[in-house]
Amino acid sequence: MNNAATITSLQNPRIKDAVRLRDRRQRVKQGRILIDGVRELQRAIDAGVTLAEAFVCEPLCRTSEAKRLLAELPGSGAELLAVSEPVFEKLAFGQRAEGVLGVAEMPRPTLASVAEQIIAPRPAVAPAVIKPRLVVAPDALPQNAIVAVLEGVEKPGNVGAVLRSADAAGLSAVILADPRTDLYNPNAIRSSLGTIFTMPVCEAASSEVLAWLREHDFSIVAARVDGSVPYTQVDYRGPTALVLGSEAEGLTAAWSGEGITAVRLPMLGIADSLNVSVTAAVLFYEALRQRQM
Amino acid sequence: MNNAATITSLQNPRIKDAVRLRDRRQRVKQGRILIDGVRELQRAIDAGVTLAEAFVCEPLCRTSEAKRLLAELPGSGAELLAVSEPVFEKLAFGQRAEGVLGVAEMPRPTLASVAEQIIAPRPAVAPAVIKPRLVVAPDALPQNAIVAVLEGVEKPGNVGAVLRSADAAGLSAVILADPRTDLYNPNAIRSSLGTIFTMPVCEAASSEVLAWLREHDFSIVAARVDGSVPYTQVDYRGPTALVLGSEAEGLTAAWSGEGITAVRLPMLGIADSLNVSVTAAVLFYEALRQRQM
Repeated sequence: MNNAATITSLQNPRIKDAVRLRDRRQRVKQGRILIDGVRELQRAIDAGVTLAEAFVCEPLCRTSEAKRLLAELPGSGAELLAVSEPVFEKLAFGQRAEGVLGVAEMPRPTLASVAEQIIAPRPAVAPAVIKPRLVVAPDALPQNAIVAVLEGVEKPGNVGAVLRSADAAGLSAVILADPRTDLYNPNAIRSSLGTIFTMPVCEAASSEVLAWLREHDFSIVAARVDGSVPYTQVDYRGPTALVLGSEAEGLTAAWSGEGITAVRLPMLGIADSLNVSVTAAVLFYEALRQRQM
Repeated sequence: MNNAATITSLQNPRIKDAVRLRDRRQRVKQGRILIDGVRELQRAIDAGVTLAEAFVCEPLCRTSEAKRLLAELPGSGAELLAVSEPVFEKLAFGQRAEGVLGVAEMPRPTLASVAEQIIAPRPAVAPAVIKPRLVVAPDALPQNAIVAVLEGVEKPGNVGAVLRSADAAGLSAVILADPRTDLYNPNAIRSSLGTIFTMPVCEAASSEVLAWLREHDFSIVAARVDGSVPYTQVDYRGPTALVLGSEAEGLTAAWSGEGITAVRLPMLGIADSLNVSVTAAVLFYEALRQRQM
């Protein structure tokens, strides 16, 4: 990198534009997202996300992971911008200053692109580069497909935590139905440890998600505090959708009725709910346990 | 309450002393803790925690739960201090200002008091009021006792999240071994939703915990990323200790060797670890599943 061009001014317009991406409206307006953290950025690149710019502060790149990433960046197509430490600290979130921060085009995955990814798993195909209008035959999903649906989720940290568990438990995809946070909120990216770029994931309206699940013959299992069936009594071995509601309100009425099994986790103590990411992980691992028996 | 005595000064020494309790050293020095949140305070009182003071800002007590708590406070033995809204906002954390905040004597539960609580579950016996030197016969714990041990945990939010799941899954107790946070950190209290006051819980050195578990004939099951046994292959129906390590470093060597089963959760994705509270919940619910079969 050409150190002569190091950006040292906090007022530099490129810096100001990048900092603005912490704000949801700016992400939507610019069609771009911020990716902080060496691990997160590495996973985004590995998954084929299109980087527009990378801000680099070499003195802060201390780990071997940071150095590996630094060596790969020139081949990523991103414009590289060297910045001073104070400028980097302004760009980076909180106490993380790992020396590299990326700005990427916002991926725009859809239910159709998620279906495509389930049928033909990556490596390294970003949702953004999949032809979004691809029509998938209703019978095309594999029989072991298992997806999580999060309806109305508000906290980006919960989105990330669910993605991390979904990655570990081998889920096929995570779908946000009527989300009240945006998928690429920096806290969702961070708490996902970058799995947000490698798991098939998209946002859609609840009605569309429901239609899509029915079209693909998923068994729909909705977690409700008042569910009638203990979650361990359900067979998760066929194509299954595990549906979870928001922290505050649970699932809407869209997720009840014919063809939808309402399950509950035992709640033996004084508290009346579990964190949504905890409920999700317990369901994901019960499904995996049954599938590995 | 006598509104004539409403505290309106942020410089009032009672206010300053209470605010200082956000700091661990001050909690240790004063031997007191802060309890913010109506639900958390209600659960502390129900569990018999000794409240020293309660700061009340009646105009902020808007929910029925807050009003119920307000009605109970005069019988709690706590000194009631009316405060103005600006003063309350200084006392309360973040965006929570539910109108009541308590200062309590720090409970000092021990392994012995936890054993006592497992043998004779509450209602409403606070760790603080249990005779700490009570000697429990080694064979006295019930055959279905199941405890979680968290070693070296650093993040108070994780302590709280584990307590919340332990409460829901019906665990007998949660033990912090060599913790690097204090049990009654405000974030632990908050993220536990107050179950920190109702679940038997204590801190102790790893060596003491191990000796105590062996004395009471617990099966010791340690979660390790490189564990040799899939977690679903273990029988959790007898007296069982589920042991989890810190976020960053996992378990120390104290938790390996003879008589300790190292289990792993399947990790099928690209990430190499799960959040400790997620791992804990999956283990807790697998144990419960086996016990309910």
